[in-house]
Amino acid sequence: MTDDLPKGFRAGTAAAGFKTTGRDDLGLIVSDRPAVAAGLFTQNAFKAAPVLVCQELLRRGGPVLAVLANSGQANACTGDEGIVNCRATQLLAAQAAGLAPNDILPISTGVIGAQLRMNLWRAAIPALVQSLGRRDAEGFTRAFMTTDAFPKFASRDIGLSGGGARLTVMAKGAGMICPNMATMLCVALTDAATEREPWQAMFRRAVAFTFNRVSVDGDTSTNDTILGLANGASGVAVQSPADLALLEEALTGILGQVAHMLVMDGEGAGRVIHITARGAADETDAERVARSVGHSQLVKTAIYGGDANWGRIVTAVGYSGARFDPDRVSMALCGVERFCHGQPVNDDQEARLAELLRGKDVTVEIDLCAGSGEYTLQASDLGHEYVSLNADYRS
Amino acid sequence: MTDDLPKGFRAGTAAAGFKTTGRDDLGLIVSDRPAVAAGLFTQNAFKAAPVLVCQELLRRGGPVLAVLANSGQANACTGDEGIVNCRATQLLAAQAAGLAPNDILPISTGVIGAQLRMNLWRAAIPALVQSLGRRDAEGFTRAFMTTDAFPKFASRDIGLSGGGARLTVMAKGAGMICPNMATMLCVALTDAATEREPWQAMFRRAVAFTFNRVSVDGDTSTNDTILGLANGASGVAVQSPADLALLEEALTGILGQVAHMLVMDGEGAGRVIHITARGAADETDAERVARSVGHSQLVKTAIYGGDANWGRIVTAVGYSGARFDPDRVSMALCGVERFCHGQPVNDDQEARLAELLRGKDVTVEIDLCAGSGEYTLQASDLGHEYVSLNADYRS
Repeated sequence: MTDDLPKGFRAGTAAAGFKTTGRDDLGLIVSDRPAVAAGLFTQNAFKAAPVLVCQELLRRGGPVLAVLANSGQANACTGDEGIVNCRATQLLAAQAAGLAPNDILPISTGVIGAQLRMNLWRAAIPALVQSLGRRDAEGFTRAFMTTDAFPKFASRDIGLSGGGARLTVMAKGAGMICPNMATMLCVALTDAATEREPWQAMFRRAVAFTFNRVSVDGDTSTNDTILGLANGASGVAVQSPADLALLEEALTGILGQVAHMLVMDGEGAGRVIHITARGAADETDAERVARSVGHSQLVKTAIYGGDANWGRIVTAVGYSGARFDPDRVSMALCGVERFCHGQPVNDDQEARLAELLRGKDVTVEIDLCAGSGEYTLQASDLGHEYVSLNADYRS
Repeated sequence: MTDDLPKGFRAGTAAAGFKTTGRDDLGLIVSDRPAVAAGLFTQNAFKAAPVLVCQELLRRGGPVLAVLANSGQANACTGDEGIVNCRATQLLAAQAAGLAPNDILPISTGVIGAQLRMNLWRAAIPALVQSLGRRDAEGFTRAFMTTDAFPKFASRDIGLSGGGARLTVMAKGAGMICPNMATMLCVALTDAATEREPWQAMFRRAVAFTFNRVSVDGDTSTNDTILGLANGASGVAVQSPADLALLEEALTGILGQVAHMLVMDGEGAGRVIHITARGAADETDAERVARSVGHSQLVKTAIYGGDANWGRIVTAVGYSGARFDPDRVSMALCGVERFCHGQPVNDDQEARLAELLRGKDVTVEIDLCAGSGEYTLQASDLGHEYVSLNADYRS
């Protein structure tokens, strides 16, 4: 069962009862040797207790041995008691698995504001530890899913100068229809040996090109966390610039694959809007335009309805705050130009557009004619499924 | 019929056929003497043709005699042809009513991107001009409504030092459920005599405290316009600081009344969220917090569902960009404290909150404990009616 994880990592899961469904909601990954750790965390000022605990651990710079994940309770906005509880979960898992509490990086997702139900943790930890080595990447991923329609994980084998290594990424976060769970948790494991600085740096770059270019509803969660553990169990070290480049390429590729899974999550329920802004004064302006369009409720509902109401897209460009001359802006929807140098293109393409808008992927291309800045963003649409799922999430 | 408008103003309307319902969609207000004009316009970079034409007219600084309003077509993103068409509508109305084209301020709302159907304009102008003097404030307001559930207008009589004057405000813009029409058009008329500078200045201040504190979906329209005409037909002049203060007080009050109507529009279909951010480092930070909460899709869907999911509110405060210490922030929902100096308040108020959340008005109070900045905002919720109305607006 465990041969899909990189060497030296074992996974375990348990159903602690944080969720009423009876499904696994607790997961543990343990490395058989100290791993170099990288981490990226939410920018929200209210950071969940596990985020604060992880940040403190990573600041110390030492190696780690485990990741403890739970769904059902976010342990966010829980104040001092939340921190105390988080440390207690580290201690419980450490005692049962023969580790030290600070060997363990905790990650959580679920309802915000409620305190962890410690009795359920105490009861579930023995089964969790006993199952170590009996779960694969999919099993671990399922333990920290929330309303995700499917588990999101992927592996790659990388040929480095010293031999082969493996990279596995497991993530949660429902894109299209469950952005309530905009909380994105991601664990990347590799059995390559690498040093801390380049490992952390390649995560920062890879995330900027992948997860940070996905937009669901613009709500930045209190819990967003990406962890990377490299334990060197393959015996292959990443040291030369060429090896580093190979590992980074694999990491960027696999994170991009998982980011696309996030947006695609609402299988059959929505559309993915691929927004490209080009010709901006700089990349910041291009990003402003792409995010303004991708966050517009009016654009998102029109795309949901398959309505080629392109004026809403141009309107969102107009209030983006980017610098441009309105008379030079052009825009194409699904490859069909609707707006050219500030003038509408009123040809007879409505029927064709209606047909194109039935597809699952919708492209929006904006050219500002103001420079060479470019940015792409994948955004979800906004439909009844979003409202239904988010209007009554807690009950 | 016309006694509700200030003295010297006549209104007329017609059904031109821009809308398929057969309802009035064209309106004209004519003053019997030159009026001092004020105007405020959208900040969107793509300004509709009538916005550009009004701005040019107001820059000249001379008096005006009329307002020409239509619904069904926004004449926005219509390029050079849109400007030519807008000027042609001024000319048609001027010729029929015995005015000069530049006496007339045009305002439009409706679908973006389509050119005006000039043949319908030509056919409808004679009936429009013939009806002058036969419509009241409600009739004129109805002619530029779109999906508004009810017409929004109000009048006040003001006692000034020289005698009585009247102020009438007519507006469109559907708040709660039809934010597609976030386009806000507003015409204010008074028969008091005032000078241009203070008249314009009091509009700027009054709008900052009223319309600018209402949020529906954050989409800033291409057509937003507020016009103020003062024709002096009452024979009462506003000159002393005391008179100016009285007029400004009346204007602010009446615009506030109409702004509330905008948010209340979706009668029976949604809730109004009254957000107050206080204790911010400055007013800008308070506004950041209020808008972050008021624009959050997760907060808006929770309120729609009557779900006391207060963690989403704190989360939106957390990514607002305002400066504060997370450990000092407090938050109350419907007057029930849920978060106190960074700690959750986990008392047994869920049943009471669920009851309070059944009301039409929901209050959210946030205290940042970081200074004395304060800002209030009224926001709409986000429900199925919004999605239905906006997913297929054009057809």
